Amino acid sequence: MAHLLSPSCSLDISSSSKLYCKQSIQGSKVIPSSFMLQTFNAPIGRLVLQGKRLQRSSCIVRATTLPISQEAKTQPSSGSHDTSSGPSERKKVMVIGGDGYCGWATALHLSNKNYEVSIVDNLVRRLFDHQLGLDSLTPISSIHNRIRRWKSETGKNIQLYIGDICDFEFLSETFESFKPDAVVHFGEQRSAPYSMIDRSRAVFTQKNNVIGTLNVLFAIKEFREDCHLVKLGTMGEYGTPNIDIEEGYITITHNGRTDTLPYPKQASSFYHLSKVHDSNNIAFTCKAWGIRATDLNQGVVYGVRTDETEMHEELCNRFDYDGVFGTALNRFCVQVAVGHPLTVYGKGGQTRGYLDIRDTIQCVELAIANPAQRGEFRVFNQFTEQFSVNELASLVTKAGKKLGLKVQTLSVPNPRVEAEEHYYNAKHTKLVELGLKPHLLSDSLIDSLLNFAIKFEDRIDAKQIMPSVFWRKIGVKPKTVAA
Amino acid sequence: MAHLLSPSCSLDISSSSKLYCKQSIQGSKVIPSSFMLQTFNAPIGRLVLQGKRLQRSSCIVRATTLPISQEAKTQPSSGSHDTSSGPSERKKVMVIGGDGYCGWATALHLSNKNYEVSIVDNLVRRLFDHQLGLDSLTPISSIHNRIRRWKSETGKNIQLYIGDICDFEFLSETFESFKPDAVVHFGEQRSAPYSMIDRSRAVFTQKNNVIGTLNVLFAIKEFREDCHLVKLGTMGEYGTPNIDIEEGYITITHNGRTDTLPYPKQASSFYHLSKVHDSNNIAFTCKAWGIRATDLNQGVVYGVRTDETEMHEELCNRFDYDGVFGTALNRFCVQVAVGHPLTVYGKGGQTRGYLDIRDTIQCVELAIANPAQRGEFRVFNQFTEQFSVNELASLVTKAGKKLGLKVQTLSVPNPRVEAEEHYYNAKHTKLVELGLKPHLLSDSLIDSLLNFAIKFEDRIDAKQIMPSVFWRKIGVKPKTVAA
Repeated sequence: MAHLLSPSCSLDISSSSKLYCKQSIQGSKVIPSSFMLQTFNAPIGRLVLQGKRLQRSSCIVRATTLPISQEAKTQPSSGSHDTSSGPSERKKVMVIGGDGYCGWATALHLSNKNYEVSIVDNLVRRLFDHQLGLDSLTPISSIHNRIRRWKSETGKNIQLYIGDICDFEFLSETFESFKPDAVVHFGEQRSAPYSMIDRSRAVFTQKNNVIGTLNVLFAIKEFREDCHLVKLGTMGEYGTPNIDIEEGYITITHNGRTDTLPYPKQASSFYHLSKVHDSNNIAFTCKAWGIRATDLNQGVVYGVRTDETEMHEELCNRFDYDGVFGTALNRFCVQVAVGHPLTVYGKGGQTRGYLDIRDTIQCVELAIANPAQRGEFRVFNQFTEQFSVNELASLVTKAGKKLGLKVQTLSVPNPRVEAEEHYYNAKHTKLVELGLKPHLLSDSLIDSLLNFAIKFEDRIDAKQIMPSVFWRKIGVKPKTVAA
Repeated sequence: MAHLLSPSCSLDISSSSKLYCKQSIQGSKVIPSSFMLQTFNAPIGRLVLQGKRLQRSSCIVRATTLPISQEAKTQPSSGSHDTSSGPSERKKVMVIGGDGYCGWATALHLSNKNYEVSIVDNLVRRLFDHQLGLDSLTPISSIHNRIRRWKSETGKNIQLYIGDICDFEFLSETFESFKPDAVVHFGEQRSAPYSMIDRSRAVFTQKNNVIGTLNVLFAIKEFREDCHLVKLGTMGEYGTPNIDIEEGYITITHNGRTDTLPYPKQASSFYHLSKVHDSNNIAFTCKAWGIRATDLNQGVVYGVRTDETEMHEELCNRFDYDGVFGTALNRFCVQVAVGHPLTVYGKGGQTRGYLDIRDTIQCVELAIANPAQRGEFRVFNQFTEQFSVNELASLVTKAGKKLGLKVQTLSVPNPRVEAEEHYYNAKHTKLVELGLKPHLLSDSLIDSLLNFAIKFEDRIDAKQIMPSVFWRKIGVKPKTVAA
């Protein structure tokens, strides 16, 4: 798989241009060799770009069009949804993984708040969908069209760098070009089930996530040593210990002596482990190099809409309900919409922290606005409420019944390695102290998710609701589901 | 660097044959295409082997000579140093990294104890020496000659698989061919300073170590699910907490509740971090797949001689004294031999666990003879005594003065990220409970190291004693050393 991910393009696209990547095949390697640039006001023109072949078949392509940010200075900010809450001097924020679920909502929110935003993404999340035969319930535009639509709605530019952060030459160019004050790093393979499908995906997940983050740390050290790294971790790093979960650190008294140490981690998938590895690597570089970093140990995110994605249907965010990238709440809503029983993994006592995507973007903004000190490795637990899977199933059942739908719940074998009944009490006060105003999970939010599922019922793919093919791959035989 | 490591050969060599790998150049890739096989009793004969080109330029080559183990059954065990302490039914032990310092001593010891031993190694440690201009004080034979010499001295075979465990196809073949009952995994980049030289070596270290270990775990799961993994960790995973260090786990009472959790880790180099990542990955697979694993958190190893390496000079082990792969005790002895001041990093209060290499091989043997249970992730702290750097300098100074040598000590800037004065009290009782009889650091052992340094004085390379080039690379300017 790696050779499919290697070719990378560093480019700035004009918002008034349509850009196609034309690929040529040389042997077994796919190398972008030229770009077709189609402007709205001119016949198709071909812009031939310089491509040089690098070690390990990565390819840097440089376009000569003006960066969007330069255009912006000459254009009126018509249709802007700016609020006055943004910084007076525009802070530059690079959102790595800005084409994904959390990344897209964050990039738009920060742009709306008058931050100067760039998105760095290799778009591999879209490739995963193609490879696994999955799709978001909501239709998702190309990243190029999304960014153009954002510009036309708000007058605001988002710079786009398409490439792989595991390719340090590419990443270096983005740093030298954009000069970020903060980097929000969502750019990782983020699915636990994906990392458990087979060896190659386990290895891909750890290599991609760990090396990508190492490269970001080295890029900060080399090019922007004062840049604040806001890294997305996960509450899953902690596992389910039988004691309260603290925010990153715990003070231990042992044999008459006391120290405050990193909270012990017990991750339960190769994905979650990759985040533990990241946390350890980042903590070290804060100490060794004086990196300033905030690790946001995020809970499970739900919700689709934010103020920004609501502006136009082309800005719509993902709604994943499959067994690989979807989460329980989304899956339940889709199951209700098509009359399928809610599939609860095992006993359903699995309890986790949850938050609304509107709180994800609020938390990231708070972290950026209140950066960590040089050398500080700051850990926030980023969630607002705890629920068990059974509690979520009950909430969705209630919402379905209000609509007159028949809702059943079915326990299916648990494909995950996790306790199904356990103590869980995780602290999450630091972001509240910084000013987080939570959007708690309400009946109306669940109603809206359910309405999404009903609205897009034609797009629901039955096999994604009960993806037994993935369960078999990880050695679990699910019971036959009685419809 | 990766493409230099990729070509791999899976082969069994005849102990009575001399084997050369002839390489052909195709484009920029070096691919072993044929082997020249020279037997002692016959004219040079050419054995043409099948080579197929695989993804990412790795190359599996199959020889058709008899595996050494098959020969052994038909040959008298003349010159054997077998003791009766070995298992009655020969246990098969695969030593990954068996060409290295600890690996070589371990492979010979286990072979001598009548285990059936194979060595899996890509020999990259030798490449590092070439690339960095370093060399062992003691001359080291090729792995082929070492194994032949072992056979001629003891009549015992060690099977050799040359290749990279990051290449799962190669690793799978070694598992299917050798069918190990235990795997001792030394096969990692094991130098903290090496991992800190630059970005590419940091990334290499983590990728090589983490992916290699993941592959070993998947190979056990796929081919030998009952195989016991004996993995070399490091005491450096723990860092220097202000509380006692336990063996792998710590029981914490917090807010009125109690749990036993993984001991918090605070590694201080990309190398040490890679071992932390390994430990977390292995712990998870024990829980998820029922892998049986022992993590040996080893201290700093000293000493050259073991009963087996003493049998012939061609079996001699490494003596590294440089700033990258050497350790303080070796460096001090070499410095005394050439009249250079002992270079103590910083204040010299850095305290660590130490052990004799004769105890390394004893501990590994104890772990193999008393395997972990299925699903158990067992952690032993593998060292016998604690010393500060200043204490080691005093011991070497005393030994040098006994020989009438003038010995000075010089504090030089510390190139490492570490506390120079700290609490340190690490438990190490579990291996003693299994039967470890420690060889404590004695004056006579230091005398013998010093005599090694004097014996090989002609081979001492002055620039390896004070490798300021590496310090500069990691941003430290060492003071000028007054000779």
